[in-house]
Amino acid sequence: MLVLYFSPGSSSLAAHIALNETGAPFEARPVLVATGTRKPEFLAINPEGKVPSLLIDGRLLTEVLAILFYLGRAYPQAKLLPGDIEGEAQALSWMSFLASTVHGARADATQGRAAFALAAQRLGAGEWALGDYSVVDIFLFRLFWRFAARFQFTPDEFPNLEAHRARMLARPAVIKTLAVESAIAEKAGLTLP
Amino acid sequence: MLVLYFSPGSSSLAAHIALNETGAPFEARPVLVATGTRKPEFLAINPEGKVPSLLIDGRLLTEVLAILFYLGRAYPQAKLLPGDIEGEAQALSWMSFLASTVHGARADATQGRAAFALAAQRLGAGEWALGDYSVVDIFLFRLFWRFAARFQFTPDEFPNLEAHRARMLARPAVIKTLAVESAIAEKAGLTLP
Repeated sequence: MLVLYFSPGSSSLAAHIALNETGAPFEARPVLVATGTRKPEFLAINPEGKVPSLLIDGRLLTEVLAILFYLGRAYPQAKLLPGDIEGEAQALSWMSFLASTVHGARADATQGRAAFALAAQRLGAGEWALGDYSVVDIFLFRLFWRFAARFQFTPDEFPNLEAHRARMLARPAVIKTLAVESAIAEKAGLTLP
Repeated sequence: MLVLYFSPGSSSLAAHIALNETGAPFEARPVLVATGTRKPEFLAINPEGKVPSLLIDGRLLTEVLAILFYLGRAYPQAKLLPGDIEGEAQALSWMSFLASTVHGARADATQGRAAFALAAQRLGAGEWALGDYSVVDIFLFRLFWRFAARFQFTPDEFPNLEAHRARMLARPAVIKTLAVESAIAEKAGLTLP
């Protein structure tokens, strides 16, 4: 039994999309960042008060990268991760870069632009980060979707990342996840992205 | 054939220790951060100019987390990673936390203390991060070894992290790696940690 604690539009969006890509049954429990995540009942589940928090038969797994890896490995038929050790390591390299260098630049537009320039260089002319679609694309999409809006990137700044976002927005799992999260955001008076 | 590009005492120390833990043959090529890593001949190997850079039969793998995962999986007899999917995901959760939250706080003593307080909470009373020794301990050790010195933590601030460091410093692979890196640092006029 999988339970995902998420806050609409936050880092947890990547985990939410990946769950919908797997087709596995799961329960999605919304908990708003900075209000819900500070409540004692949530801190009892994750003492660090962060989303995404995934419960696997009651056991806590945290960090976007680790949840995406877990879902990729646990549901191989969804083909969200390469099947060999070195391919998995390359997926983790991309995701570690996204979690540290790109996500770490979220507070500053200049640093953010420099970080997405590196991401654009890594993506290059390819359709997907690793050649085939993978959890890396989900992580990259969530960051670009959020921070292109925050930093007001113009469409010609990162054309390959813009095209990647458009490809992601056409995927049924992404459409479904954004519909669910947008409805919750609207009720809470938040705008996405 | 494995080739590790490293700079003494830098993030690459973790990859260097893990390589020595595996017992696999490898070639270690020193390249100093901010001087050597900016040279055209190194940028031709890794356009991001970062260490550690691992070449696996000539193919580049970057990011501490990904290199540690790769070595753990490729050399299972060294027992540096749990053998099941969920155990691997927990190792990655720890390492993602270290790569983003802890390493991301490296520039500021107040943030650094807060980050290591979370790391100490994660470690708890256990001897090793995951119960058994793993690559997570190598990553944790390298960060604490470096930043306890930089931020001048007192011995009573993080007693469990201090004890963890002492356990690590007693391991043959750590002793060997620090001896090699210290010798190179000394020649370059640098002091470790």
